[in-house]
Amino acid sequence: MTHATPGKPTMAKPTISAPQRALVEKHAATLDAAMDAVMSRKSWSPFKDSPSSKIHGEEKPPAGKAAFEARLNQRFDIDLPGITGWSGEEVSPFTREPLGITYPLCEPEALIASAKTAMADWSKASPGLRIALCLEVAEQLYDNNFEMAHAVMHVAGQSYTQAFSGSGPNALDRGIEALAYAAMAMDKVTPAAEYHRQFGRDQVALEKTYTLVPRGVGLVICCASFPTWNAYPAMFASLATGNPVIVKPHPIAILPMAIVVERCRAVLSAFGFDPNLVTLAADTIAEPIAGHYVDHPDVQIIDFTGSPRYGSHLEKTVTGKQLFTETAGVNSVVVESVDDLVASMRAIARASSLFSAQMCTSPQVVFVPKDGIQTRDGHASFDAVAQCIVDEIDALAANPKVAAGIMGAVQAQLSLDVVTEASQMAGGEGLRILREGEAYAHPDFPKALTRTMMVIAGDSSHQAMYAEERFGPVLFVVATDSADAAAQEATELARTRGTISCYMYSTDEDFIDRWVDVYAAVGANLSINLTGAMWINFAAAYSDYHVTGLNPAGNACLADLSFVASRFRIAQRRRPIVTPLSGSAEKTASTG
Amino acid sequence: MTHATPGKPTMAKPTISAPQRALVEKHAATLDAAMDAVMSRKSWSPFKDSPSSKIHGEEKPPAGKAAFEARLNQRFDIDLPGITGWSGEEVSPFTREPLGITYPLCEPEALIASAKTAMADWSKASPGLRIALCLEVAEQLYDNNFEMAHAVMHVAGQSYTQAFSGSGPNALDRGIEALAYAAMAMDKVTPAAEYHRQFGRDQVALEKTYTLVPRGVGLVICCASFPTWNAYPAMFASLATGNPVIVKPHPIAILPMAIVVERCRAVLSAFGFDPNLVTLAADTIAEPIAGHYVDHPDVQIIDFTGSPRYGSHLEKTVTGKQLFTETAGVNSVVVESVDDLVASMRAIARASSLFSAQMCTSPQVVFVPKDGIQTRDGHASFDAVAQCIVDEIDALAANPKVAAGIMGAVQAQLSLDVVTEASQMAGGEGLRILREGEAYAHPDFPKALTRTMMVIAGDSSHQAMYAEERFGPVLFVVATDSADAAAQEATELARTRGTISCYMYSTDEDFIDRWVDVYAAVGANLSINLTGAMWINFAAAYSDYHVTGLNPAGNACLADLSFVASRFRIAQRRRPIVTPLSGSAEKTASTG
Repeated sequence: MTHATPGKPTMAKPTISAPQRALVEKHAATLDAAMDAVMSRKSWSPFKDSPSSKIHGEEKPPAGKAAFEARLNQRFDIDLPGITGWSGEEVSPFTREPLGITYPLCEPEALIASAKTAMADWSKASPGLRIALCLEVAEQLYDNNFEMAHAVMHVAGQSYTQAFSGSGPNALDRGIEALAYAAMAMDKVTPAAEYHRQFGRDQVALEKTYTLVPRGVGLVICCASFPTWNAYPAMFASLATGNPVIVKPHPIAILPMAIVVERCRAVLSAFGFDPNLVTLAADTIAEPIAGHYVDHPDVQIIDFTGSPRYGSHLEKTVTGKQLFTETAGVNSVVVESVDDLVASMRAIARASSLFSAQMCTSPQVVFVPKDGIQTRDGHASFDAVAQCIVDEIDALAANPKVAAGIMGAVQAQLSLDVVTEASQMAGGEGLRILREGEAYAHPDFPKALTRTMMVIAGDSSHQAMYAEERFGPVLFVVATDSADAAAQEATELARTRGTISCYMYSTDEDFIDRWVDVYAAVGANLSINLTGAMWINFAAAYSDYHVTGLNPAGNACLADLSFVASRFRIAQRRRPIVTPLSGSAEKTASTG
Repeated sequence: MTHATPGKPTMAKPTISAPQRALVEKHAATLDAAMDAVMSRKSWSPFKDSPSSKIHGEEKPPAGKAAFEARLNQRFDIDLPGITGWSGEEVSPFTREPLGITYPLCEPEALIASAKTAMADWSKASPGLRIALCLEVAEQLYDNNFEMAHAVMHVAGQSYTQAFSGSGPNALDRGIEALAYAAMAMDKVTPAAEYHRQFGRDQVALEKTYTLVPRGVGLVICCASFPTWNAYPAMFASLATGNPVIVKPHPIAILPMAIVVERCRAVLSAFGFDPNLVTLAADTIAEPIAGHYVDHPDVQIIDFTGSPRYGSHLEKTVTGKQLFTETAGVNSVVVESVDDLVASMRAIARASSLFSAQMCTSPQVVFVPKDGIQTRDGHASFDAVAQCIVDEIDALAANPKVAAGIMGAVQAQLSLDVVTEASQMAGGEGLRILREGEAYAHPDFPKALTRTMMVIAGDSSHQAMYAEERFGPVLFVVATDSADAAAQEATELARTRGTISCYMYSTDEDFIDRWVDVYAAVGANLSINLTGAMWINFAAAYSDYHVTGLNPAGNACLADLSFVASRFRIAQRRRPIVTPLSGSAEKTASTG
């Protein structure tokens, strides 16, 4: 009869190698700063979001461009399990040429099985190590961000500067923000405790062990227009909490995510983990594959960013899994009164023109009282306000360099169809096209698919036109009976159609006070009286919450505790504390 | 032209009355201690869980009994909106007499509408005040716990001492634990921040406001056998985060929850809130009403405790809402080897006999290697182990006072049908009834519906018998090929059928080490080698996590951050910081 030593601690400490320990130490300060930042919500980032070579040196920009160009017309080789073929359908919105890159297509069962295999070791790694590995990925992606900028440009159509900042550091920041929350949530679970309590005449002494258990395979479904921005937080949140991740990019925008997956796998391998913790589930437009993963019982976490149509399908059908969504809604501007009319309308014109309104935060409808508004320079009629927006868009469009930097390109025909459809509807009674959207001449890419904002004026009777998301360069200026009617309609649209970001201009504090609670109640994040150099639709990681979960635009808040807290679970065990030389231990030993 | 003063702060501080402030101060130390307790997971409670009059005084026990008796054969008057009738079907498992209490039946629309109305003020109250109000409810319920003990006894069948402790302080502790997590989660959201960053040549300065927004009406569906234990954490978690709560008790066990609702409403009213924040949705067995609430779009949070059948229906159909479930599973014991056979089997016998196995933590199947096990007194055969369990149950059953204190009564015929069905199946090949379940004579209630444990022996070929939850006094002792086969079967049952609590007896540390990770992976909380005065199925609030969410037994972890973090959402607003005497403010003022 063999008995092991009683009282041997059963808590297996995760083993950690010297390079792993060094990695945790390397990134500790960044993690601490990120945790401070999400608590204080002040401006912070470990990165610089300007592509200036004054910051990054002269070598990085051309090297990044060369790295991107070396990808073209090649297989994007990732050693994934279960490869059944190769495919790629990406076309650059700037050159209008196919990228010619093909990606491995894999058997879903093979990716899921390998993810589960990889999970065993990963789930036993300490949270601190998992987070440090994600931070290492972020740092390496930042180091190679010029390549990413070109990759995003040529699949999504973002301008070079936006692709560099918005799809680079700003997106990585959202990922690190998720790591900060994951760290906080996991920190709240003590790994062990002693429990002492009197029960009747017994003094009970128990040792308790609390194990963080990952929930299961995470599926990250990325959008076409801004793939990295939501993918990083989703991937990092799942990885940090012990889950493997399968990345399902949009078939017209695979390259950025393939680069991310490649980088994750390299870092994981370098530090002794199975690279199949992060895999790429590429597919084609003709044969979409997401459903196979969504339905698989081992896929337990789904992060979706994309169209309201598929997002809403998931929201209505997925049960028994953790589903995070960001879809879209109708972002509105209410103009009640302004200090500086031109500055305010310029802010709206710039925000709607940014990436030709192909952003989840793009304003789509501007509500203005039909009798006009007060400004510091006196009364401005509805038409004067609308014309001011048009003038500001004209000014942007007139300068090709400015236009290129702001608008970038239109990703695909789909975004132009939106304009065409709006144009056809604009013939309706009471509607006026104030500005036709036209191509602008891109200074670097003469064939680029470009389009400036179309502006259509109407009134609240035209809700059918503006009350659903039109993901393309169309802006509606809508006359309402009053400013309160405008806010009423804006908040009701938010409640019923969803919104990511709302805007308000008012110099009347009573008006603002009257409406802020209503905006909050319908889950509309609200920017008030923003003008100037910061894009009014800029959402800063660590400071701005993104998506409230209170309206149909999704439930994936970047980032809060709810974004991470259910990605892991807690399993416990408990047993009597055995003092090696006490009664029962001796007894056990004596009978061994 | 009117302009309000620029720079007026838009952050409305919640107003708080003097009595409200005093309440927050009164409960501050308890909240702090609870937050410490859930972090350290040490033994703690603000309450005493013994009904001894040495603790509570001589007056409280008879006063509680009298208060309960005064409820009988009366309308339970709660001034609810939309009352359409009165009904009550409760029968005491101890006296076998109807309680004769009728409860208001209400229009779901009326309760939901009044909950939404009440939510407006509640959502604006500070988290600290909401939590203090819940703590006041807990304290008052504790003060009146003798009445609650009788109420629970006579609807559920719990023994007097168990009803006092398990449905009283132990349950209130789980509620306060949820408050501690709610406080932590909400504390992580700063109410405001200043944001300063350079954009181009602009130094941007924004004030940001972050508002906690409750998710919506919370529905708490309670189980029949242990209504308060899961209801308190669910109710308190929803209330603390700003949501109103509609309590839907089981039609055969309304009284305890009616008392809770009455108490909540009194406390809310006393401190200036709308009592319709907490309402009672009583229904009848013939006309169940839960579905009306579940389907209503304003009901955004559902906490369900009860049968796997209805729970699984909810898990498969509810989308777009936050659903927390605790259903049931198959709780197993694996006996690999023991130090003291009698002490170990007594622990199992007591745990299964507690409340006649009508608990979500009751062990249902004991796996023992067919060739027997090692003990400190040498080898014990399978039959000897099984007989030891039977002997220990016999010993409990032989003493009516002990039996009454442990087993209480069988709640309803349903629990006896489970026994009958098992008895009929036990005629199958290879199965042996080792012990018939019989009524025992309750010393205080001669007509009490009582039943001691039936014990059936079989082997792994009889999975159909023991591999689903049998919610009644039946225990299976199952012979396996080996101890590892036992653990394999136990963990596989946990994974596929769910479990709340698993048990293991082994003096072999290698065996334990080999299996603890597997138990954790399938989400089985594991108690190892527990014997003595503490019930092995006792789950201590603040220390023991309850339900992992990793298997079919439910996802409502009592309590962790995931139990609270998605009950509220965050809406933000931001605007430029205006310095009253700076340029733009002066300009605005000069044009006003």
